[in-house]
Amino acid sequence: MENKKQDTASALKDIISHAKEYGFVFPSSEIYDGLQAVYDYGQNGVELKNNLKTVWYKAMTMLNDNVVGLDASIFMHPLTWKASGHVDSFNDPMIDNKDSKKRYRADTLLEERAAQLEDEGKEAEAKALLQKMAKCLDAGDLEGVRQIIIDENIKCPVSNTANWTEVRQFNLMFSTQVGAVSEDASLIYLRPETAQGIFVNFLNVQKTGRMKVPFGIAQIGKAFRNEIVARNFIFRMREFEQMEMQFFVRPGTEMEWYAKWKETRMKFHLALGIPATSLKFHDHDKLAHYANAAVDIEYKFPFGFKEMEGIHSRTDFDLKAHQDLSRKKQQYFDPEINENYIPYVVETSVGADRLFLAILCNAYTEETVGEGEQEKQRFFLNFHPALAPVKVAVLPLVKKDGLAEKAQEIVNSIKFAFNTTYDDGGAIGKRYTRQDLIGTPYCVVVDYQTMEDNTVTVRDRNTMTQERISIADLKEKIGYAVSMERIFEKLLS
Amino acid sequence: MENKKQDTASALKDIISHAKEYGFVFPSSEIYDGLQAVYDYGQNGVELKNNLKTVWYKAMTMLNDNVVGLDASIFMHPLTWKASGHVDSFNDPMIDNKDSKKRYRADTLLEERAAQLEDEGKEAEAKALLQKMAKCLDAGDLEGVRQIIIDENIKCPVSNTANWTEVRQFNLMFSTQVGAVSEDASLIYLRPETAQGIFVNFLNVQKTGRMKVPFGIAQIGKAFRNEIVARNFIFRMREFEQMEMQFFVRPGTEMEWYAKWKETRMKFHLALGIPATSLKFHDHDKLAHYANAAVDIEYKFPFGFKEMEGIHSRTDFDLKAHQDLSRKKQQYFDPEINENYIPYVVETSVGADRLFLAILCNAYTEETVGEGEQEKQRFFLNFHPALAPVKVAVLPLVKKDGLAEKAQEIVNSIKFAFNTTYDDGGAIGKRYTRQDLIGTPYCVVVDYQTMEDNTVTVRDRNTMTQERISIADLKEKIGYAVSMERIFEKLLS
Repeated sequence: MENKKQDTASALKDIISHAKEYGFVFPSSEIYDGLQAVYDYGQNGVELKNNLKTVWYKAMTMLNDNVVGLDASIFMHPLTWKASGHVDSFNDPMIDNKDSKKRYRADTLLEERAAQLEDEGKEAEAKALLQKMAKCLDAGDLEGVRQIIIDENIKCPVSNTANWTEVRQFNLMFSTQVGAVSEDASLIYLRPETAQGIFVNFLNVQKTGRMKVPFGIAQIGKAFRNEIVARNFIFRMREFEQMEMQFFVRPGTEMEWYAKWKETRMKFHLALGIPATSLKFHDHDKLAHYANAAVDIEYKFPFGFKEMEGIHSRTDFDLKAHQDLSRKKQQYFDPEINENYIPYVVETSVGADRLFLAILCNAYTEETVGEGEQEKQRFFLNFHPALAPVKVAVLPLVKKDGLAEKAQEIVNSIKFAFNTTYDDGGAIGKRYTRQDLIGTPYCVVVDYQTMEDNTVTVRDRNTMTQERISIADLKEKIGYAVSMERIFEKLLS
Repeated sequence: MENKKQDTASALKDIISHAKEYGFVFPSSEIYDGLQAVYDYGQNGVELKNNLKTVWYKAMTMLNDNVVGLDASIFMHPLTWKASGHVDSFNDPMIDNKDSKKRYRADTLLEERAAQLEDEGKEAEAKALLQKMAKCLDAGDLEGVRQIIIDENIKCPVSNTANWTEVRQFNLMFSTQVGAVSEDASLIYLRPETAQGIFVNFLNVQKTGRMKVPFGIAQIGKAFRNEIVARNFIFRMREFEQMEMQFFVRPGTEMEWYAKWKETRMKFHLALGIPATSLKFHDHDKLAHYANAAVDIEYKFPFGFKEMEGIHSRTDFDLKAHQDLSRKKQQYFDPEINENYIPYVVETSVGADRLFLAILCNAYTEETVGEGEQEKQRFFLNFHPALAPVKVAVLPLVKKDGLAEKAQEIVNSIKFAFNTTYDDGGAIGKRYTRQDLIGTPYCVVVDYQTMEDNTVTVRDRNTMTQERISIADLKEKIGYAVSMERIFEKLLS
């Protein structure tokens, strides 16, 4: 009888403390009171995150013969971001209050006002306000946005006045100076997305890898955005990690591939153990300047259904822009139709941190076990065994009589096959709980019978049932249960 | 009869072109004429680099029960770098020529002068010059450094004058502004080393992981340095990746652990297939302010023996500095001796890119095969099979008569076990060469006999010998040959 807490909004707080207490996610530089919207992955978090990165990368490159990897640098030539449009239009609208000197995101002020109207039951007014704002933003009419703020009589919460400056655009890219020789020093950016590292290497990979369109390039890497309103734990961070695949196709075939990748990517999240009820597609009403089709895969976070992955048909926008600016042809000769063309691109882009958060929220499980006076609450992290940070904990029932040594022997015999830990501290029930709290799927217990017949009990995290098996069978039986092959089989079925 | 080219200085040029031509390393943003001292890893490079990262991480965390992982962010609270000493002293001495307005590293000017003296046979003078410079730099005597430049009559290569400014210190950290609300915006740095991410999380990991000293924290991640003289391909880059393990020990025991890790780490590089003659220890004559012992493991690059990894006994310098600045106790209670103390730290820090370059240089092999008129040069990349980007290439002898389909069937039956590729393009000899050029250890050939008895030939990259084996045995036989277990076995022996 599972009673998952992740459906309620207050659950996020519990998940954040759990993540900290059990070594999944720590606030960055915590001893200096942290750095806003930046987090570190602890000893269990790094294992979970590495497993997610590995399963994504292998699902891309091993399950698809025509997808290869790439690892482009974070620093790129600044013209890259001119071509991509980020220098000119990767902006948030900002407004300052002249009395308090405080700066705000203009759209956030209006969104908060709309939320307030909704709370007052004025839903139609709220909706009209948001539509008006969207219209102005789409048209680049910043004066219009300011006028709405004035008309709504929105005040600065600090000065309590409506004495506003004009609205200006603020670029979200982080910049830095490279080169110490002053004449050569130049402004470069921390990449705000990983996609461009793939686009500028399109021909390098195609030629040196002898790739034939259609083919894809998959990449995992950090990106950075100076978010004004960074929130919801690791959902929106200033430093984050993307797992992106850009798939190059013959123009005109992009909608087929878009449909195919949309389906493939949804299947991936389901194969990781996320239930269909927690996932949905969200088609973009309005398309970005580079796209002719776009959809998000949303996960039901404690704060609502939100984007975890985007699948975009990016047309030839990026390659064409790079060709125009660099004056280097970005064309492919297609031997099947005897034609040169700039390929179209279908992109799948998932936030590694968002997927991590989804998997963590989804795993967070409380259930009531026992009946009557025996009834109690039980907690565990219900990770897919292939994703769990630790696969097996080997626990000697007692430390004496050679049981501890026997348990260590077992650890040494299986630890290269899957992540195994040893624990001899405290009562056995307490040690089970400790493993439940980090989501270890199996506990292997060494008892007195083990010393006689070389069998151990294997306790299942979810069912709490125990099975006695031979030590000789451990490696193979658990090996398959915790292997990523199980996920790949689902993807191929 | 191997004749390795990597021993000659000109070999670096060949290696750089090979790395580009075969998808290992591309110059970053190449279509915009590149970004100095920044590189991208191509489709084969990313596989090799991932293999190196995996084998390092597993050797740390799986072979050592008391070492766990961490993945701290690149952005950290700026006080971190105050405590570590980087804000105040992570500098290079710079000098400007007043006529040309060009800026130079003062120490580089003097090193170049010393090299010139050596070329002229004046080795004693060269040595004296370098010693004089080192003495000034150690004492922070920048005026003294300038005086040597004047005394040596060193001229700017552009203006050809000796009209120099004073020498100033230039900080090597990249900085950026975080936060858009102007009052809150603050200067932060891109981390110049990954170690501090481990130190500030020392207590988080120790407590949530219930770790007992001695224990270690291992981390792989990017770091950034605004190098004035970035050179030697991926050896010294402005954006680079470190693989670091900080090992926390009881004060007074650090020299034992230092000796142990020194030995362990040398064994690691040998286990990757680097011969002992290409590796050596280099003890630091002069210790950094935080160290009481330090040694480099140097690899014989084409440009000489240079640091690949550093092993440092860092004392309690870092934890103490963080405790002083944050006013948060960084102590551990040691139950064995009933005492509180700040642990001492032994660090092992290897550059992932440098190890990549060492492995690539070491693999670069040319040999003469055949005799008399049959004599010819043969080239291959001699990677350890567990590190090779592609493990197996499956080649149908011809495309017709079902051989291509049979080959694809074999690919599908083994591709989840190890990285497998399919190639049916061109003569079989040409396809062997193609795999030799990227270092694929095994080529599996499907021929007419395969269609009759389900056997294939397996061709060995190094010996070029062929063995006929049953398809049913492929997965297990090759599986072990290309597995990292072989490396771990060497490490444990």
